[in-house]
Amino acid sequence: MEKKELLYEGKAKKVYRTDDPDLYIVDYKDDATAFDGLKKGSISGKGVVNNRMSNLMCQMLQKAGVPTHFVEELSDRETLVKRVKIVPLEVIVRNVAAGSFSKRFGVEEGTVLKCPTLEFCLKDDDLHDPMINGYHILALDLATQNELDVISAYTFQINKIMKEFFLSIGIELVDFKLEFGKLDDGTIILADEISPDTCRLWDSKTHEKLDKDRFRRDLGGVEEAYLEVMKRIGLN
Amino acid sequence: MEKKELLYEGKAKKVYRTDDPDLYIVDYKDDATAFDGLKKGSISGKGVVNNRMSNLMCQMLQKAGVPTHFVEELSDRETLVKRVKIVPLEVIVRNVAAGSFSKRFGVEEGTVLKCPTLEFCLKDDDLHDPMINGYHILALDLATQNELDVISAYTFQINKIMKEFFLSIGIELVDFKLEFGKLDDGTIILADEISPDTCRLWDSKTHEKLDKDRFRRDLGGVEEAYLEVMKRIGLN
Ligand SMILES: Nc1ncnc2c1ncn2[C@@H]1O[C@H](COP(=O)(O)OP(=O)(O)O)[C@@H](O)[C@H]1O
Ligand SMILES: Nc1ncnc2c1ncn2[C@@H]1O[C@H](COP(=O)(O)OP(=O)(O)O)[C@@H](O)[C@H]1O
Ligand SMILES: [Mg+2]
Ligand SMILES: [Mg+2]
Repeated sequence: MEKKELLYEGKAKKVYRTDDPDLYIVDYKDDATAFDGLKKGSISGKGVVNNRMSNLMCQMLQKAGVPTHFVEELSDRETLVKRVKIVPLEVIVRNVAAGSFSKRFGVEEGTVLKCPTLEFCLKDDDLHDPMINGYHILALDLATQNELDVISAYTFQINKIMKEFFLSIGIELVDFKLEFGKLDDGTIILADEISPDTCRLWDSKTHEKLDKDRFRRDLGGVEEAYLEVMKRIGLN
Repeated sequence: MEKKELLYEGKAKKVYRTDDPDLYIVDYKDDATAFDGLKKGSISGKGVVNNRMSNLMCQMLQKAGVPTHFVEELSDRETLVKRVKIVPLEVIVRNVAAGSFSKRFGVEEGTVLKCPTLEFCLKDDDLHDPMINGYHILALDLATQNELDVISAYTFQINKIMKEFFLSIGIELVDFKLEFGKLDDGTIILADEISPDTCRLWDSKTHEKLDKDRFRRDLGGVEEAYLEVMKRIGLN
């Protein structure tokens, strides 16, 4: 399968058409952005980590019955995926308070939440991805109630699987962001990526951050953190 | 029933203790604030309109089976209410896009929503009343699932009743904010106020604003708008 025209260049990946109208190739970049694109940089080797980790997670989830866009890893940075129409929502799960949640609700970072939370943000860079709720989504025709139910059920299932997996390799899954998409027949599947760009991953013992917060907050050791995650999940 | 010590002075009302430990007296002020208290002013006669309108709405809702804190109107500005522990949430219903909703999601003011929406904001001035969702509320122990279910059911019922009522007097109920409280035995009842301070009310024909937006946006005719609402609802 070969790359045809570039369809979309996002902040972290390029998306290409292929010979098969139902399949895309995503190509992971080392580019890193934060704070609504205000902070820009590069994390050497990130594209490789994110591509390989994302594919591993998709395969794990698929085995557990969660359908994903993953088809085949083509190279260190390139993966063949099912073309979907992305549901324009960022689906965020939190197990521990951190980041925008801590700021918004005045809850100290690191506070373990009484139960996992799910929140939706409207995927719209111009509006700065505002938080949105199920009623708003229905009122604005962004998804149906059934689609939201399916997305929510998959998301909690994914959280359970990922939390256990990361715990087994000494990592606390603090929070993460998912994107879902629709196949032509309307089936909802998991798309986009699962990586240290889209998850907060803390060392279970030391609480050291092993994710993009090292870049966001200028903590140093950014590349090393990505490689450490890759090592712990058994890649390389 | 007489006012004892002042317990709390809010932005729009004073709350007094009474001889009866289960009853408070609320005293409506003419003070007006907007934009998180950044804008301050006064709307002459507002306290009277809000007190009397709020009491009328409570009585109407009570007849329809929604329990409220209303006990007795003591004067133009003073009302005896049941003491509750306020659930620290602002409960917002929207029938038409306006205000923060329009800004947040880039939807033109006046757009009729496909279905009414409900949203919760954390009642916390220091945090600027951030939007919050049901999962967050459970995770932060702000209310129970059952309390949220009861509040949501009452809220949609209240919207239905109020929308119809206002329509019958030539007013479109665009959106409004409610607060609920808990009696000692845990029963959830409607508290606080329902007034042109807490509702967006537009003339059905001309779409003229008959609410606090006239103050927020320096549209003039503020007092007149409050009096017009009072007249249309049959008071005075
Ligand atoms: N299977 C897929 N089919 C179609 N689009 C996808 C798929 N997976 C991810 N995408 C989209 O590819 C785009 C590129 O990714 P990314 O660089 O992360 O973009 P962004 O800057 O929007 O975060 C995103 O808009 C993402 O939603
Ligand atoms: N029945 C009640 N029992 C106890 N407190 C109430 C009741 N009804 C309203 N309150 C509270 O009274 C306070 C005074 O009202 P207001 O001036 O509107 O305050 P705010 O500045 O918080 O909006 C509010 O905190 C409101 O939640
Ligand atoms: Mg992305
Ligand atoms: Mg108030």
